[in-house]
Amino acid sequence: MSAKTSPTQPRRLSEITDWHRETDIAIIGFGGAGGCAALEAADAGAEVVIFELASASGGSTALSSAEIYMGGNGGTRVQRACGFEDSTEDMFSYMMMAAGPQADEAKIRNYCDNSKAHFEWLLELGVPFKDSFHETRAIMCLTDDGLLYTGNEKAYPFSEQAKPAPRGHNLYVEGDNGGPMFMKIVTENVEKRSNIRVEYETRALTLIADEHNQIHGVVIRKDRQEINVRARKGVILCAGGFVMNQEMVARYAPKLSFGTEPIGNPGDTGSGILMGMGVGAAAINMHEGFISVPYYPPESITRGILVNDKGQRLINEDVYHARLGNAILSDNSERHFFIVTVDQYGDYESMNFMGAQVVGTGETAAELEEELQLPRGTLESTLELYNRYAADGQDPLFHKAEQWLEPLEGPLVALDVTPGRGAFWPYFTLGGLDTLPTGEVVTADQQLIPGLYAAGRTACGVVRRAEGYSSGMSVGDATYSGRLAGKAAANRDN
Amino acid sequence: MSAKTSPTQPRRLSEITDWHRETDIAIIGFGGAGGCAALEAADAGAEVVIFELASASGGSTALSSAEIYMGGNGGTRVQRACGFEDSTEDMFSYMMMAAGPQADEAKIRNYCDNSKAHFEWLLELGVPFKDSFHETRAIMCLTDDGLLYTGNEKAYPFSEQAKPAPRGHNLYVEGDNGGPMFMKIVTENVEKRSNIRVEYETRALTLIADEHNQIHGVVIRKDRQEINVRARKGVILCAGGFVMNQEMVARYAPKLSFGTEPIGNPGDTGSGILMGMGVGAAAINMHEGFISVPYYPPESITRGILVNDKGQRLINEDVYHARLGNAILSDNSERHFFIVTVDQYGDYESMNFMGAQVVGTGETAAELEEELQLPRGTLESTLELYNRYAADGQDPLFHKAEQWLEPLEGPLVALDVTPGRGAFWPYFTLGGLDTLPTGEVVTADQQLIPGLYAAGRTACGVVRRAEGYSSGMSVGDATYSGRLAGKAAANRDN
Repeated sequence: MSAKTSPTQPRRLSEITDWHRETDIAIIGFGGAGGCAALEAADAGAEVVIFELASASGGSTALSSAEIYMGGNGGTRVQRACGFEDSTEDMFSYMMMAAGPQADEAKIRNYCDNSKAHFEWLLELGVPFKDSFHETRAIMCLTDDGLLYTGNEKAYPFSEQAKPAPRGHNLYVEGDNGGPMFMKIVTENVEKRSNIRVEYETRALTLIADEHNQIHGVVIRKDRQEINVRARKGVILCAGGFVMNQEMVARYAPKLSFGTEPIGNPGDTGSGILMGMGVGAAAINMHEGFISVPYYPPESITRGILVNDKGQRLINEDVYHARLGNAILSDNSERHFFIVTVDQYGDYESMNFMGAQVVGTGETAAELEEELQLPRGTLESTLELYNRYAADGQDPLFHKAEQWLEPLEGPLVALDVTPGRGAFWPYFTLGGLDTLPTGEVVTADQQLIPGLYAAGRTACGVVRRAEGYSSGMSVGDATYSGRLAGKAAANRDN
Repeated sequence: MSAKTSPTQPRRLSEITDWHRETDIAIIGFGGAGGCAALEAADAGAEVVIFELASASGGSTALSSAEIYMGGNGGTRVQRACGFEDSTEDMFSYMMMAAGPQADEAKIRNYCDNSKAHFEWLLELGVPFKDSFHETRAIMCLTDDGLLYTGNEKAYPFSEQAKPAPRGHNLYVEGDNGGPMFMKIVTENVEKRSNIRVEYETRALTLIADEHNQIHGVVIRKDRQEINVRARKGVILCAGGFVMNQEMVARYAPKLSFGTEPIGNPGDTGSGILMGMGVGAAAINMHEGFISVPYYPPESITRGILVNDKGQRLINEDVYHARLGNAILSDNSERHFFIVTVDQYGDYESMNFMGAQVVGTGETAAELEEELQLPRGTLESTLELYNRYAADGQDPLFHKAEQWLEPLEGPLVALDVTPGRGAFWPYFTLGGLDTLPTGEVVTADQQLIPGLYAAGRTACGVVRRAEGYSSGMSVGDATYSGRLAGKAAANRDN
């Protein structure tokens, strides 16, 4: 027991002499995914133990605003009350576009088909949503409104192919963060089930597998003791992502190295993903992450233009901040700026999260161009073209929606959004273990690993790239995928 | 034996009742990596068997031109004869930039430090290189010249940070393809060694591992029999990449789905990578691939400009074709064009590999813009700015080198380079098993998997992304990493 146990080296069943604990299902991690997995597994009649590293439930869900992306099927109660009829097909089309070439169609189909029912399940848990719509463009809803647009739904090209509907459901809670309240509700529900036990301050070390990599349990460490836990039906890994593991981020998701602010909890060390890999599970989409530049509020910044050091625009500026951030990172330039008018700059200093500094001002485009040391004529010709079209309410180049179009007249202000130098860049990982929609973990050639399940950020979920992420997809996926994994494990016939 | 053996499910040592064969080292695959691994292992005194799926040696190396990227240490014989002194530090700086955030510094350092010695090792094998320099810009050297620039060495920003030197070494051979001759030489050398045996038409099914995932051999199929091969020192996976496995490409490298022409041999099904994953090895950089648009020859196309459907340029057009191709794929546009003058178009039809069609012509930029249905003023303002600077021999936006700069005057021609619609796009994978510079395979938390080695495309080598690839890095890495793995396995103390 003195040598460090590696999560990628499973303990073999043949080496286990004593089972110190037995249960039907062992769940690793008590965030949104683990909590919801436990509830469904318990309600299907299974005996469940949750092992949580921290001294309380919460995980990354409790650190988030706990917005939940839901809709379809004619609309949730909140959507309908706010006047939005949302169809499952529109939601499906939107999410498929959002996932792009990485889409897992079966998983997205399942998510959309059951999204309204998931909303109702959350209501039954006691999660409160107010039937009110938040009009203003926001990164997080700072009011108690229950519904808002949280992604690219109204932006080109998404709006052309899927009828927009707001699907970000925001908890009815005082203050700005729904996460703690959401996890309090989940935890209270867990505590009501006599067939769920929670063990805090326990670290999962490695899986217990037989020689064919079938899973029989997990080794945990508690009070400096290694404890062999037999899980008769299976182990569900809900241990979060790997954003706090710098080596793994560097090796798997180097584009996130531009980020300045990892979003996650200290347990997001990738241990669940590593345990899966140790028994031959495939980790997929590991290079992808959410990385963004939160350029609104104030929403007036959206009326400005984003340009690179060639004075070129990159994207319609009315997209979600992660899509815009990704466009900056994909652009092979050394500097990037948001060019806004003094009016658009408006409340920037008091309201903005972005942290970008003013690096230039000018009465005219030519003056600003010179101050920013851009090649002569670059910003000038971009603005000339932009203004000519904007005066007619058009943006034939990038298709920013008409409501955000107005000619940019001096005096002009340039904000520095250069990665690593200007703005603040939050990031988190989006890769994880490959799972079937049920939460069953598979190998790279799609063989099941019997007894192993994953959910939340430990799995690769419906959310697969910054270009298509909408706020609410993380907690939406964590809670829903947790439920499915809990059900599947409880119903396993072994 | 009726159930299909999955490569991700190792055969356990405890299940092996008979060893049908025994050797020190089993090598899976007889391409450039496998052949060189065998030579070094044999020369270090080990008994070696190579198992090759096909009925002859060759692999993807034989399908390539077998250019080899080498230099440093004052220059190879060919570099020096052609008047280029190449320093190891310049080569290292270049390769580090080429690999970008994915760089494995230890591996690149090792490659550069030993590159000139690798050249000499190849000479000893009998690989011939002519001491002549090929001046013309080329995708592959269609002459018998021994040396050419094969990447981004002379293009911005590489040229600013590392003194350019040509490092693509081209075999002295009649006809256009050095690959078959290269593999013939390697094979003849293999056949000379009495301690190497080659078994053709054998398929490696899965690794033989003990319960701690230590590797003891490999199960192969030959003449419909499953044969257990004990490898006392280790197994070296040189089984190629996964470009021919459509499911794996879709799941791991979706950006390659834009490619039209997979570059590889039928054995590139990812089986070596899958076998590694089955024993807990990490597969890294799996999302990355080489994907390119071969827009030269004629080199005169380099004098044109690449624009998107906003009329914007994307990159200095004097970069290597994979870097330019990657810029197109990373740009969020629906159409892309090469705009050239009639003079630059020149010999395009007879010389070009790209397959792009002429989709517009115009006496002026405005005429061409209209014909391409670009928003009015877009291409016009881009060309106006480009020409103004080009007349002074400058490109302050993208820094194309002066030799390629000239104002583009009508009549103008537009070639369609839209992915999936216009040009031809070759591609191959660049991800694989994570290895130490020695070729030893490791898990995601950098634990050794004793007895397992990988080289060539089965490993993740020095070449990590299209943006920085130079021709010759594949065969360079395959042959050099094969040698290291062969040596390491032969010297293993077990």
